[in-house]
Amino acid sequence: MSTHTVRTLESFEGGVATPLGFRASGQYVGIKAAGRGFDLALIVSDGPAAAAAVFTTNKAQAAPVLVSKAHLAASGGVARAVIANSGCANACTGSVGMQDAQDMASLTAALLGCPAEQVLVASTGVIGVNLKMDKLRAGLPAAAAALAADQGPAAARAIMTTDPFPKEAAARVSINGATITVGGIAKGSGMIEPMMATMLGFLTTDAAVPHAILARVLREVVDDTFNAITVDGECSTNDCVMILANGASGVTIDEHSAETFADAVRAVCLPLAIGIVRGGEGATKLVTVNVTGAATTEEARRCAKAIANSPLVKTAIHGGDPNWGRLIAVAGRAGVAFELERAAVTIGPIVLFKDGRPYDEAAPEAAEYLKNPELALSVHLGAGSASSTVWTCDLSAEYVKINAEYRT
Amino acid sequence: MSTHTVRTLESFEGGVATPLGFRASGQYVGIKAAGRGFDLALIVSDGPAAAAAVFTTNKAQAAPVLVSKAHLAASGGVARAVIANSGCANACTGSVGMQDAQDMASLTAALLGCPAEQVLVASTGVIGVNLKMDKLRAGLPAAAAALAADQGPAAARAIMTTDPFPKEAAARVSINGATITVGGIAKGSGMIEPMMATMLGFLTTDAAVPHAILARVLREVVDDTFNAITVDGECSTNDCVMILANGASGVTIDEHSAETFADAVRAVCLPLAIGIVRGGEGATKLVTVNVTGAATTEEARRCAKAIANSPLVKTAIHGGDPNWGRLIAVAGRAGVAFELERAAVTIGPIVLFKDGRPYDEAAPEAAEYLKNPELALSVHLGAGSASSTVWTCDLSAEYVKINAEYRT
Repeated sequence: MSTHTVRTLESFEGGVATPLGFRASGQYVGIKAAGRGFDLALIVSDGPAAAAAVFTTNKAQAAPVLVSKAHLAASGGVARAVIANSGCANACTGSVGMQDAQDMASLTAALLGCPAEQVLVASTGVIGVNLKMDKLRAGLPAAAAALAADQGPAAARAIMTTDPFPKEAAARVSINGATITVGGIAKGSGMIEPMMATMLGFLTTDAAVPHAILARVLREVVDDTFNAITVDGECSTNDCVMILANGASGVTIDEHSAETFADAVRAVCLPLAIGIVRGGEGATKLVTVNVTGAATTEEARRCAKAIANSPLVKTAIHGGDPNWGRLIAVAGRAGVAFELERAAVTIGPIVLFKDGRPYDEAAPEAAEYLKNPELALSVHLGAGSASSTVWTCDLSAEYVKINAEYRT
Repeated sequence: MSTHTVRTLESFEGGVATPLGFRASGQYVGIKAAGRGFDLALIVSDGPAAAAAVFTTNKAQAAPVLVSKAHLAASGGVARAVIANSGCANACTGSVGMQDAQDMASLTAALLGCPAEQVLVASTGVIGVNLKMDKLRAGLPAAAAALAADQGPAAARAIMTTDPFPKEAAARVSINGATITVGGIAKGSGMIEPMMATMLGFLTTDAAVPHAILARVLREVVDDTFNAITVDGECSTNDCVMILANGASGVTIDEHSAETFADAVRAVCLPLAIGIVRGGEGATKLVTVNVTGAATTEEARRCAKAIANSPLVKTAIHGGDPNWGRLIAVAGRAGVAFELERAAVTIGPIVLFKDGRPYDEAAPEAAEYLKNPELALSVHLGAGSASSTVWTCDLSAEYVKINAEYRT
């Protein structure tokens, strides 16, 4: 056997408590109505971990987002734990909401014996409603007592609002002969009760990662995964993705291994992100949108997002209609360089428009292809060589039904 | 009675052939399948008219858009007629499509005895399909023979695809003691057959209007009317609004009367634009979205459009849910200046969020208000004093059904 370094990135079954030195728990404490599942997730590193996060760009930022940002700044990017509740977004709740988010952190910190700024906070659920702090206060000790390395699945369930299924992923990779593990959980939007559209992602790794590398890798990977999905083009007040790196594997990531580490993080984030789309409200199909031939990568991404958010494209896919004209129309209005005479539309492997002329004779074959539950659309803009990929789902009458249901 | 000038702007029943010196016709020539209604509209001025138009900003521009632009440039803004078909968009049809659009103009010009560049062309219907030129050629003489001052309603019907009703409007105003009339027809998107989403508007006036004033007034008015509506945020390959001013009233518009003239044009365009929303695909409610407290008018418009296109807002309205958090969330992500602490949300007359705190106790009253078929939403951004109004409709399961139906 040769002794040269073999890069062996492997995805496997696991989650947020799979990396060494992490424990998690998921409990029902009474924030949700009874019978709606767990509502409190706790993720803890045995020792202080390097921490980084990306937050929603929405200007109406929820209290837990503001508190977590402040804690990351105060701690210099060190965290011991993430405390997250579902059933209430604690957004648009004014000064009471800010105090509640701070209390969530300090109550957790007291139980763990760490500074409050080493606890990150996240909430998801209804906007404009205050947290039931009495329930949270009463339930937190049990959540701490339940912490275990095999309770990652409970944490994954506890952050769900009405997601149709929990989303967990893990990957390991060998770096200089030692193995590091990355794990994660995420939730998306499977709204039965309206206004529960928050995307949350929590990642852990037992690698030791300098903060600068951790923050950079997280941003890069999130850009290609969580930021490359869309269900309905909405951006919530609470979105965040957090990563904790505790070094329990004994492996330290440096600039030489940063790319390998990023690959492992990506191997966790991509299935979580795609899981969110798969579990999108009313979704019946997973759609990969490829835009090629763009002038710049940014334009490719913008056009792919415009296609992925187009109600006419999404309804056509739902109906199995190979309606390539809608893809051309969106590309033309997306505000990107576009040359109709050099453009092309491909549905799966089937070319429907190329060199300025339609190939409508291929429509029946394309319609057949569109019956697949997972499918790909490609639009070539004829304006350059940059490309981008985005994932989305179809738009069904069920989406309307879910979101039109009366809340009060 | 006093002799000072009284401005008497009056809306009345009428359409594109109501102003003096205009005739119109609507015919079935066989472009649509039989039984789907008229498919060829002809609008003719008895003499040369000043003409201006605004066209889609989509980069995939249909052949009739390109031909009409070229004709306006070649004629120096003079036109005798508009020829428009429904049932086929003549978009993404390559060089054959360009020849067809040019032939539509020259065949019409030959019948009317005018230069081809004095004929403007428009098409609406399926993208990527060639015009049935044999049907058009055979039907044009009958369309010319049917021209009459009382056939405006037939023209209004002939540009419909599957709009649920025709859209006509007229207004007259007295300028220095003489009366000028403005008339118009429009079509929107009432898609049963997918890909028929083109917005067309044709306006006429018997005022004599210098081309510079005509073009400026059209752009200004379209911005506040046709450009302030949205059904689903899509922008077609064929959108256009055209105006012909033939001077048959003997009244000439100058800079002093330009604003009065603009008011008359607006009085025609606004009901046509709102009619398009009212007839939007699957629409059950007409929604006026007001954004106030914006830093700039442009930001107010951008935020109002974001709200009007939000699937979560549109489904909440459909379901009668006073879900104000969704309005805050959209305002926060719309890329405009926004101060949560100074923001407010009002549904009809009912305040649901103000000064950073929710008034959820008013939700039942707001839910009652949302049962109205016509309703208003207001969001105050707390960032300035600019405002904008946009009109939209709700998003229903019927929209999905209409657009998911299989085309091939």
